[in-house]
Amino acid sequence: MYTFEPDKTVLDKTELTLISQYWNACNYLAAAMIYLQDNPLLDEPLKSEHIKNRLLGHWGASPALSFCYIHMNRLINKYQLDSLFIAGPGHGAPGVLAPVYLEGTYSEYYPEKSETINGLKKFLKEFSFPGFIGSHCTPELPGSIHEGGELGYSLSHAYGAAFDHPDLIVTCVVGDGEAETGPLATAWHSNKFLNPKTDGAVLPILNLNGYKIANPTILARISEEELLNLFKGYGYEPILVEGSEPQVMHQKMAHALEHAVNQIKHIQHQARVEDKNGRAKWPMIILKTPKGWTGPKTVDGHQVENTWRAHQVPLAGVKENPDHLAQLESWLKSYQPETLFNHDGKLIPELQAIAPKGQSRMSANPIANAGIVRQPLKLPDYAQFAAQVDAPGKLKISNTSVLGEYLNQIFMDNPNNFRLFGPDETASNKLDAVYQSTQKTWLADAKPEDSDGANLSVNGRVMEMLSEHTLEGWLEGYLLTGRHGLLHTYEAFAHVIDSMFNQHAKWLDICKHNVEWRAPISSLNILLSSVVWRQDHNGFSHQDPGFIDLVTNKSADVSRIYFPPDANCLLSVAEHCLQSTDYINLIISDKQKHLQYLTIEQAKQHCKKGIDVWDWASHSEALDTQSQSVDVILACCGDIPTMEALAAAAILKEYLPNLKLRFINIVDLYRIQSSDEHPHGLSTSEFEQLFTQDKPIIFNFHGYPWLIHKLAYKHNASARLHVRGYIEKGNINTPLELAIQNKIDRFNLVLDVLNRVPNLEGAADGLKNKMQQAISDHLNHAHTYGMDSDNISNWQWPDTNFEVEVNDK
Amino acid sequence: MYTFEPDKTVLDKTELTLISQYWNACNYLAAAMIYLQDNPLLDEPLKSEHIKNRLLGHWGASPALSFCYIHMNRLINKYQLDSLFIAGPGHGAPGVLAPVYLEGTYSEYYPEKSETINGLKKFLKEFSFPGFIGSHCTPELPGSIHEGGELGYSLSHAYGAAFDHPDLIVTCVVGDGEAETGPLATAWHSNKFLNPKTDGAVLPILNLNGYKIANPTILARISEEELLNLFKGYGYEPILVEGSEPQVMHQKMAHALEHAVNQIKHIQHQARVEDKNGRAKWPMIILKTPKGWTGPKTVDGHQVENTWRAHQVPLAGVKENPDHLAQLESWLKSYQPETLFNHDGKLIPELQAIAPKGQSRMSANPIANAGIVRQPLKLPDYAQFAAQVDAPGKLKISNTSVLGEYLNQIFMDNPNNFRLFGPDETASNKLDAVYQSTQKTWLADAKPEDSDGANLSVNGRVMEMLSEHTLEGWLEGYLLTGRHGLLHTYEAFAHVIDSMFNQHAKWLDICKHNVEWRAPISSLNILLSSVVWRQDHNGFSHQDPGFIDLVTNKSADVSRIYFPPDANCLLSVAEHCLQSTDYINLIISDKQKHLQYLTIEQAKQHCKKGIDVWDWASHSEALDTQSQSVDVILACCGDIPTMEALAAAAILKEYLPNLKLRFINIVDLYRIQSSDEHPHGLSTSEFEQLFTQDKPIIFNFHGYPWLIHKLAYKHNASARLHVRGYIEKGNINTPLELAIQNKIDRFNLVLDVLNRVPNLEGAADGLKNKMQQAISDHLNHAHTYGMDSDNISNWQWPDTNFEVEVNDK
Repeated sequence: MYTFEPDKTVLDKTELTLISQYWNACNYLAAAMIYLQDNPLLDEPLKSEHIKNRLLGHWGASPALSFCYIHMNRLINKYQLDSLFIAGPGHGAPGVLAPVYLEGTYSEYYPEKSETINGLKKFLKEFSFPGFIGSHCTPELPGSIHEGGELGYSLSHAYGAAFDHPDLIVTCVVGDGEAETGPLATAWHSNKFLNPKTDGAVLPILNLNGYKIANPTILARISEEELLNLFKGYGYEPILVEGSEPQVMHQKMAHALEHAVNQIKHIQHQARVEDKNGRAKWPMIILKTPKGWTGPKTVDGHQVENTWRAHQVPLAGVKENPDHLAQLESWLKSYQPETLFNHDGKLIPELQAIAPKGQSRMSANPIANAGIVRQPLKLPDYAQFAAQVDAPGKLKISNTSVLGEYLNQIFMDNPNNFRLFGPDETASNKLDAVYQSTQKTWLADAKPEDSDGANLSVNGRVMEMLSEHTLEGWLEGYLLTGRHGLLHTYEAFAHVIDSMFNQHAKWLDICKHNVEWRAPISSLNILLSSVVWRQDHNGFSHQDPGFIDLVTNKSADVSRIYFPPDANCLLSVAEHCLQSTDYINLIISDKQKHLQYLTIEQAKQHCKKGIDVWDWASHSEALDTQSQSVDVILACCGDIPTMEALAAAAILKEYLPNLKLRFINIVDLYRIQSSDEHPHGLSTSEFEQLFTQDKPIIFNFHGYPWLIHKLAYKHNASARLHVRGYIEKGNINTPLELAIQNKIDRFNLVLDVLNRVPNLEGAADGLKNKMQQAISDHLNHAHTYGMDSDNISNWQWPDTNFEVEVNDK
Repeated sequence: MYTFEPDKTVLDKTELTLISQYWNACNYLAAAMIYLQDNPLLDEPLKSEHIKNRLLGHWGASPALSFCYIHMNRLINKYQLDSLFIAGPGHGAPGVLAPVYLEGTYSEYYPEKSETINGLKKFLKEFSFPGFIGSHCTPELPGSIHEGGELGYSLSHAYGAAFDHPDLIVTCVVGDGEAETGPLATAWHSNKFLNPKTDGAVLPILNLNGYKIANPTILARISEEELLNLFKGYGYEPILVEGSEPQVMHQKMAHALEHAVNQIKHIQHQARVEDKNGRAKWPMIILKTPKGWTGPKTVDGHQVENTWRAHQVPLAGVKENPDHLAQLESWLKSYQPETLFNHDGKLIPELQAIAPKGQSRMSANPIANAGIVRQPLKLPDYAQFAAQVDAPGKLKISNTSVLGEYLNQIFMDNPNNFRLFGPDETASNKLDAVYQSTQKTWLADAKPEDSDGANLSVNGRVMEMLSEHTLEGWLEGYLLTGRHGLLHTYEAFAHVIDSMFNQHAKWLDICKHNVEWRAPISSLNILLSSVVWRQDHNGFSHQDPGFIDLVTNKSADVSRIYFPPDANCLLSVAEHCLQSTDYINLIISDKQKHLQYLTIEQAKQHCKKGIDVWDWASHSEALDTQSQSVDVILACCGDIPTMEALAAAAILKEYLPNLKLRFINIVDLYRIQSSDEHPHGLSTSEFEQLFTQDKPIIFNFHGYPWLIHKLAYKHNASARLHVRGYIEKGNINTPLELAIQNKIDRFNLVLDVLNRVPNLEGAADGLKNKMQQAISDHLNHAHTYGMDSDNISNWQWPDTNFEVEVNDK
């Protein structure tokens, strides 16, 4: 085994020269792309007109990024490694763009940025230029699966990419700014979930360049003892590489990286060949280098290199300031571009030779354009898990427990490219049927009592950690490298990952519209269970359906939202989502027991339509969508609102048998939008067929009611659209009490109908009184009897039995 | 100085007996409140009817919480400490409710839950009961400033409370589940921001009870060496207290806590008396105890104590299962309640005697009901910082830089109860005028080069860490303990704290409506700068105005949103927000230079109204709000949309001088809602006075356009309301290019007007062509010339000079 001796020399003179030169070429390009719009190789003296009109980009992080990149290249060649590169400080894109261009990949994807003097000029000019090359590791960058625009997720993405890719080493540079974020600070614990036998490895390189935009970083300003303790505490073997003199640092880094790669191989050998599997003390490198390394040391009397002043553009006003222009020229010339590139703009052959070739280049690793290697999920026929529904509203089961059985079969049929992610709630969310075929990944210590139902295993495929950030990051990394998955979480706490969700949606949107070479990847599937309406004793803090609103702000081309009303619809929706690509699919389905309505065949049809009239819950004369012979439309979206709406329909049927009520259920929320705005939307004529042109619509919604107005506004029905939903009224409540407080309950819905349909006076008054009495009865009862009062058989709205009523249809 | 010897005995026999008994009383109550609705002291044999109908609550975390609480009580008495208690595992509320009740505070706040047998019965029964006592440390709980419903924020709240409270020790129990979250994992680094001289102390107690809902915890399943290294790495002195035998554990904990408190006093002495101030190695305790400690060891053959099965209700189905009922009775009796309480239900006097009294009780610390101790912020007259506006649209300055001067004066006038929070961007957001009077808090290592402009100091009052979670947590803790502050951040990345924001909004809402004894606290003020419209090279990933949408989902009683169009309006809004209480004030104001429109007096009036017609930008015949003599309303909200709308108005004025355009600017977003829905909303008649009854409204908005439809839907204007805003179109763009892509720019606004106002045909066609030409000219220009093209003096819409046009009014 390769051992680590801090001062060992591992590069011979030729290797050292070549890697130094290659790094110079990277740094030259990184600086040049911030400044130059012409004279790309300084063939002529640098003049003001060669400088871009506005200087944008981040120099500070760039040199260390390319330093890591090219040192990994050396080992890729030496050991035939399969590696991906993740740049946590993705805003230091010049440090990644440079080696990606130099190894030829960039020109292969973008032939107009060829390896010629004109191609190079275009490449430099278009960096951070309107409409062109982004200044982060955006989706347009070959090899990138992580933009690094928003900080915090590099390490969880890296682990997600490594799961089930046993041959992969994910080289993940973490910036010391990013390291201060919460998501990154806990992602280090991902090493307790990585199986050395069946997963690949993550090689984290923490780059302590010491500064953020305007401040030092915390980790660069603690003692070396604290620093090493911290990473030992996280369970790693930290290897410190510190310095600034390039020749020395190349030796140190080559040595450290070689040690790390050998450690990884040793760990994997033990697990795979010697059959000693378990949690390993994986290596990680702490690379302590100056911010803006090799850039201007001082500018206008201020230290720049190794301070926050090097974060973005170290020399400002170059176009106007001749001193700065001269300093820039001498800085750029310090890399001796004339020795690195031929006159035609191409890297000299000796340097080209040291980069990996073909798919061994991290920028050309097919895993980073995962759609081309992705295997579709093998999906069993979900009908075999269907709830047996003889009549609507009779059977009461947990919808998610049915989904659990389906997922269990998916685990059996897809042993190494599907995972389930959740923060400690797979059992609580009633998906525990999956434990028939798999377990929870766990490589931290085991205890004897684990054998009694803890379902832990080094080989588990259910990922549970109490960090929504880490789970979401793992899942994104897993999907972005060609696999499949589902994340389930509390509805209210989906907001924890709002920002990550936004970033992934934006990534997909860009890929879909701007990056034609990116093949589609599996959709990001999020199941919200433990919903707003069933928080019981958890109360107000756990009641928040606003994640739905967030999703509706993202591009219509990537976002989908489903509200299956029962188990069979949930199965149909799940199948649809799991086989789709390039979407974000949000599914909202409560974990508690609910009434079932549709047979599997009906469910399939209903979900296909996404919105439909339920004839058995409507008045027979209100069914014809070509006719306007309707008194009122009762629409609903969401499992609990649907149950309440059906109960209201049953009450109305009993008391006002002549009321022409049309009952509409919505599975696919975007159906209510205009077809101008969303591909699933309804045209005006479709909308009016369903909702008539002028009749009142009572809409019972799972989420915030105003969202429906927002989505439907182009249909110009707002004056007759009366939406009920969660209006931030709650505490410790029984389910029905909470429904009543927010007026999505059966009694208030009846009142809504009575208040909206004209000419009902006689019949309406008595029923209104009954409804008000029922509401006050229930509230009194709940406060006397307690949490279970909804389920007490002897408490009931006296003249209504919802189940019987609906079954009678 | 007190030294730590692991096996030292510190409690004498009497003390040990009393503290053991007190803890028994806590545990008895904690268990009883989950189970009993009657027979509160087991005066008669336990029967099924004494058991609640539904068993809800979290037993698992409770015993260790009260264990920490009462051991802290001992030291409060011994050393006259001033302490707050924060329960990270706030769902273990029984472990906090119990000592709060036993020390009398609960009954003082809720006299119906008196210290009598009937009061006790009510207290137990109402726990987790519909409409009554929450099962977390909700706002209704005296002494709580942290609900602990959503996990992750206990430690940042604790530090926020400790800042500028030099005598306070915040006892903060962190659960090992919560410790897995990102926000908690990075909050440990808060110790680099705590000044031993002028701040109080935080004493973190990490309770490793080993389990979450259904899983072991990571930190309980790593080696002791890793565990201690981790906390040494975080910069603490970890003290491990491990075991399960209560008598031994009382000794160990008493000793450890005494050591910790003495260490704190020693550190503070060094800083305050010996004048050796700097970062300290603060103590923290790792308390390793069984989950569900002292509860049932096994149930139905499964181990319960010290496993995840103890998380919530360890014995289920007690009402129906006689064996479980018997086991419950014997468990409850194991605490010997008859020896702890008198027959009348009151704790025996010997035990009462050992609790702190009056305001020394952590539950009665006035700091935890901070409104009663809060001093209003001393606010200087903002007029002295006003931008000198001679005419609208002439002066161009950064609005936030003007705010910076005002904040600087606030720092001078309020030396110890105001702080500014931001993730490394105070300078970038142009608020750096504050460095005239203060600096950034920094207790990590210093370097010589810091003296050149880094603005770091142990005494700084500007809090910068690259963790929005930590900043928001600090600020919340700071406000909840009676002080004032402002958080500023990137608009897109405000989503990082969506969930924290939700929780704080819910806390305020509950306090306002349900907890009359809580006095108002300072509002949470959030300034979003670096807005969606000015991301330039940061591109698509940094473009997201959705935080505004999130805020609009919270209660109208607590949420406020302001869009000051210029510097003077920003000053007025800032003053208003900084003196308000119990709101969340969201202010959106870009950091770049912008045109100025209003004098300080005009700004004051405009902000007071929140929405107004700008007569100088309107057609003179369209001003009379009693008349409907208007062709079109051009409304705008947000600094950049306002500038574009004004430019559009100028173009229209030049080309269609007879067009009766009414120009409306909105500062207070909620003005456009209905007065039925928000206290700032407009009545129908007010809305129609401003917006007429039937004329087209072109609304140029900063955020997502459909939000305006959502807010305004009750005004039934959606058919004539045409909203422009951000529609997720962007990349690397010049500001004007981005505006054009999303159609909020001057040219598209003119087109919108031309397309909406009837009977313009002749004049309109030529102008339409000009606008389309201008759009295409600009896009071409940007892609040729680059990022700076918006500012090039020789590129301009040929016949329009916005400044002149507006000035000419």
